[in-house]
Amino acid sequence: MKKKHYLSKEIKHIDIKKFDSTPIIEQFEKTAFQSRNLARAAKIFDRMLSDENCSIILCLAGSLFSAGLKKIVYDMIENNMIDVIVSTGAIIVDQDFLEALGFKHFQGTPQIDDNELMKLMIDRIYDTYIDEKQLRICDMTISEIADNLEAVPYSSREFIKFMGKYLKERNTGKNSVVRIAYEKNLPIFVPAFSDSSAGFGLIYHQWKRKNEAKVSIDSVKDFLELTKVKVNSRETGLVMIGGGVPKNFAQDVTVAADILGENAHMHKYAIQITVADERDGGLSGSTLKEAHSWGKVDEGSEQMVFSEATIALPLLVSYVYHRGSWKKRNGKEFNKMLDK
Amino acid sequence: MKKKHYLSKEIKHIDIKKFDSTPIIEQFEKTAFQSRNLARAAKIFDRMLSDENCSIILCLAGSLFSAGLKKIVYDMIENNMIDVIVSTGAIIVDQDFLEALGFKHFQGTPQIDDNELMKLMIDRIYDTYIDEKQLRICDMTISEIADNLEAVPYSSREFIKFMGKYLKERNTGKNSVVRIAYEKNLPIFVPAFSDSSAGFGLIYHQWKRKNEAKVSIDSVKDFLELTKVKVNSRETGLVMIGGGVPKNFAQDVTVAADILGENAHMHKYAIQITVADERDGGLSGSTLKEAHSWGKVDEGSEQMVFSEATIALPLLVSYVYHRGSWKKRNGKEFNKMLDK
Amino acid sequence: MKKKHYLSKEIKHIDIKKFDSTPIIEQFEKTAFQSRNLARAAKIFDRMLSDENCSIILCLAGSLFSAGLKKIVYDMIENNMIDVIVSTGAIIVDQDFLEALGFKHFQGTPQIDDNELMKLMIDRIYDTYIDEKQLRICDMTISEIADNLEAVPYSSREFIKFMGKYLKERNTGKNSVVRIAYEKNLPIFVPAFSDSSAGFGLIYHQWKRKNEAKVSIDSVKDFLELTKVKVNSRETGLVMIGGGVPKNFAQDVTVAADILGENAHMHKYAIQITVADERDGGLSGSTLKEAHSWGKVDEGSEQMVFSEATIALPLLVSYVYHRGSWKKRNGKEFNKMLDK
Amino acid sequence: MKKKHYLSKEIKHIDIKKFDSTPIIEQFEKTAFQSRNLARAAKIFDRMLSDENCSIILCLAGSLFSAGLKKIVYDMIENNMIDVIVSTGAIIVDQDFLEALGFKHFQGTPQIDDNELMKLMIDRIYDTYIDEKQLRICDMTISEIADNLEAVPYSSREFIKFMGKYLKERNTGKNSVVRIAYEKNLPIFVPAFSDSSAGFGLIYHQWKRKNEAKVSIDSVKDFLELTKVKVNSRETGLVMIGGGVPKNFAQDVTVAADILGENAHMHKYAIQITVADERDGGLSGSTLKEAHSWGKVDEGSEQMVFSEATIALPLLVSYVYHRGSWKKRNGKEFNKMLDK
Repeated sequence: MKKKHYLSKEIKHIDIKKFDSTPIIEQFEKTAFQSRNLARAAKIFDRMLSDENCSIILCLAGSLFSAGLKKIVYDMIENNMIDVIVSTGAIIVDQDFLEALGFKHFQGTPQIDDNELMKLMIDRIYDTYIDEKQLRICDMTISEIADNLEAVPYSSREFIKFMGKYLKERNTGKNSVVRIAYEKNLPIFVPAFSDSSAGFGLIYHQWKRKNEAKVSIDSVKDFLELTKVKVNSRETGLVMIGGGVPKNFAQDVTVAADILGENAHMHKYAIQITVADERDGGLSGSTLKEAHSWGKVDEGSEQMVFSEATIALPLLVSYVYHRGSWKKRNGKEFNKMLDK
Repeated sequence: MKKKHYLSKEIKHIDIKKFDSTPIIEQFEKTAFQSRNLARAAKIFDRMLSDENCSIILCLAGSLFSAGLKKIVYDMIENNMIDVIVSTGAIIVDQDFLEALGFKHFQGTPQIDDNELMKLMIDRIYDTYIDEKQLRICDMTISEIADNLEAVPYSSREFIKFMGKYLKERNTGKNSVVRIAYEKNLPIFVPAFSDSSAGFGLIYHQWKRKNEAKVSIDSVKDFLELTKVKVNSRETGLVMIGGGVPKNFAQDVTVAADILGENAHMHKYAIQITVADERDGGLSGSTLKEAHSWGKVDEGSEQMVFSEATIALPLLVSYVYHRGSWKKRNGKEFNKMLDK
Repeated sequence: MKKKHYLSKEIKHIDIKKFDSTPIIEQFEKTAFQSRNLARAAKIFDRMLSDENCSIILCLAGSLFSAGLKKIVYDMIENNMIDVIVSTGAIIVDQDFLEALGFKHFQGTPQIDDNELMKLMIDRIYDTYIDEKQLRICDMTISEIADNLEAVPYSSREFIKFMGKYLKERNTGKNSVVRIAYEKNLPIFVPAFSDSSAGFGLIYHQWKRKNEAKVSIDSVKDFLELTKVKVNSRETGLVMIGGGVPKNFAQDVTVAADILGENAHMHKYAIQITVADERDGGLSGSTLKEAHSWGKVDEGSEQMVFSEATIALPLLVSYVYHRGSWKKRNGKEFNKMLDK
Repeated sequence: MKKKHYLSKEIKHIDIKKFDSTPIIEQFEKTAFQSRNLARAAKIFDRMLSDENCSIILCLAGSLFSAGLKKIVYDMIENNMIDVIVSTGAIIVDQDFLEALGFKHFQGTPQIDDNELMKLMIDRIYDTYIDEKQLRICDMTISEIADNLEAVPYSSREFIKFMGKYLKERNTGKNSVVRIAYEKNLPIFVPAFSDSSAGFGLIYHQWKRKNEAKVSIDSVKDFLELTKVKVNSRETGLVMIGGGVPKNFAQDVTVAADILGENAHMHKYAIQITVADERDGGLSGSTLKEAHSWGKVDEGSEQMVFSEATIALPLLVSYVYHRGSWKKRNGKEFNKMLDK
């Protein structure tokens, strides 16, 4: 079978404006198990949006954008429903930036001969295919961006801003999260930035430079910057999709603020959608109640939802979108504060 | 805290007529992971409903009705969207029949002192509460029904018919699955019938009878009857919520038909919503592809959906309900055939 | 590929006498997460064995014997480490009785063309293969046993006794759990007996009999008998591998005893090995703490272990075997009491 | 209850030399499901150790060292069973380095009032407790180390070397992985280094420095260095405990080598112990077969094991330790190459 055949059915991004999950969520609230938890999480998210003192941090982990959830995040940024993103590199670079360069993700199947895919240079994410050649172009674009920067350490947030600028200048990626975040001065942090297509581009940059000065990515700077966001927010709320580094990183800033001698509250609100299990003691599935022992998350307005994200996130965000509490919010444009 | 306080917030059953999940499912189809799987399952269910030769068997396991999913099944029966139910006893007796007698399930929390609940005679199902005293009334009603029957072996289906008759005669349980199934001659099989509130009532009946003749429940008769349904259907489709005995039992009838020398097809369609994992080799999480090796489920029109049922089932059934393919279907009234 | 090729590598049953997990369990006790839970479960099991008033009920669900865990259960029976078994039908009939008739399970792989397996009449359980033709012989042997019994209702326990007798008379199945249980008067309950190879045999029996009197399997009688075991035991302990009907059935007898007006304690000890999740509200993953609210399991000596059984069970049983607390125990031979 | 009471039962690290899992693993090989998978993984690990051309990369994610698995990793380093570590920061800094400073982890329980823990400054990891005050000392020690370094970008590997040097100079942390890795020139990479106690210390360092030159952590340099390890190894094998960033990072170096124009093989061997599920499309649970489509992992010598790590890892490593294939291996001392 030809490569073209495998890469024929494009993934389309879900548009939560096109349906209103409100009647579903309202009914879910009266039930039990995870539908009730999802409804409760939706109500907490709406409370975050109604709390004028609250900055909202969206944490993203898992192959979310390749699976069609990119536009949901785009719409949240456009409508001032979130103020900060903390993400894995794959979502921001391999998936968002890749699509912003004009490439796509495709429907596939896990019941496939992976050796054949490899020979055709097709990469598989569960039931989704990517053209490895396009991914290489994405890598090299990152390298090119780095080549044109001053050779100093950057936070991932700063570098991602340059990626947004790159897209805007070339007038590409109109549906890109990286680009709209750039345009709306919304910071995107990727604490493990090298662990992505960006890493490939950046090592290529550093490797070419040999002993000359190089661009580097300083994750400490990321942590310091996100802590500044925390310190400059009266209250904060976490909306976490998946676990991993983004969850931990964002939770940690309450403690970080304390270490810098700043008086910061725990995260007042926190919701998480995940299928991770708490019983292996890992961070991804650890309860938000546990996070309270660490002084990270306050009690009372937190909710875990045990659901795969592609089903739960559209219902969650459609609900808060149609509630409209975000209409009174302005973009907090934290990039302006951080770039001073 | 008083018992009344714990038992104050009733679980309300989801009404899938009150929202239309079609635009959600249509978008899910273009994505990846479990939202796409859910969409594919919904389309297969719709194909079952459009296939005039297909009898549809609904398999139920897990605490579904206590969690607010009863009305979904009621609506499926009323609108001829299913032809047979195979269920755990808890759903049919402890949950449906209990509510038909006028009792309720209540919202609770797993973060609770279970010893206090025990002392108050409150039973907990994850985040749901039941009044143990009401459950005992349910048990004793079963006993009373048995007392009034001829002392011979019954299939669970036959006994559940008498439960439906009991409700109808007393004009109670208008929203009961047991009652509407009785009225529409739809068979309900509970292969492990004693493993429920029915078991408590029936052992009480048998224990009182001592050496006299007793009502007994013959699960072999259940299996034979369900096989007859299979043999009398050109094609069959399985809609499985959870795994357990109902899944296995319903899958097995294709082999059973063969053993009786009848020429029966594999189940032509099969969908399952479950969070069970295949990696422990258990039946609940075993793939429908695996079921094909056994000659139980045909290839091509089967789909597993990895989701907790309270979230996925409402979306699934709302979609097929609003598609309306069921409008051309008639009730197959298999009880008439089985009671001959 | 030929059928013979697929069915070439026999599954061998684990012999927990051949290694001593004591030093592992002792170290596990000092750690965290599931290794500590496993150690705690092992200690509770040992306490059950040391408590002379305690009858021990082993609950089995999942494809355990096909996976090589049969001999572990055999050794527990032989050494008076358990007093009752409650199981799924597949384990007792399709797996134990099948092997007792001289057949085998074989190593396979889930990465296989299931259509080819079907054509070759090979059944797959995850990574294990069975010869469907041999399974049919197992079915027909059950039918033959039924044909030779008086046509009255039997508990599954009674029928399984006849299966043991069948094996003994033919001097086959020396490693069979069904046979040694028969020889040691240990009751085996299969509450959903028809949901197995036994079901195939028994419907064949009933179908042939047409309107004549038939053997039937009365699961109410099972429940009543198991309740009698409870009533005749000062204390009880549950050792549960997997969840499903066996877990629920065995837990329920404390309530059943109460309904019969007998004063029975909650299960004093309870351990469970499972990968099921509690978050879907299903019984299989429900915590033993939750079971306390129902008055089924006492607090303080209960432990869930989140592990796939083929890894955890050998470690658990090797520990208690080598501890030797069972040496002071006698077989309780409950079949004698129940057959009176 | 006093803090001292909560922090009274120390976690003890498992010593895999003190028991020999060989007879268990040999029996597991003949069975099915996860015990067989574990045996197969153990055999593949042993093949890695026997392959003189193979560099072995150990990937660590999840709260492994706080749970008692530190000594297992220590023993692997001491006996030249691994050549590189890629880890989360929590394991290396919050857990290993914390203990190296003289502090401990303690047995706790998830059934606890987390608000009380918070007030006592006790942090909870599922069923384990940590003294937050000790963690703060750990943070500040990192800060102190940074204060004494030249203010340039470092790879995490370089910084962790300084942590090892710090321990050695103060003659503390004799059982520390950080220290023995330093002494044996074994590189430890933490691609998301700031996402840990190190992050707290390093932002404190950077914040104090204000506009002066600062130490920074360049994760690109990490990626470049790990790629150099790959390029300087004929073959590589991955031993992955948990998923997350370490799994992805280590898998990626085969592609990274290609981008740098170096001819590097796929990872020839790969095993992973995880409870993550593949069905959410996340990287942690993605199969090694899927990794083959990306050209990262070769076919044939890869194995996933579905088990919580505290149970499976001791069995795995005890087996390879007692097989002794590592005796012919020398330390590869990659730090020497990387520091040139």
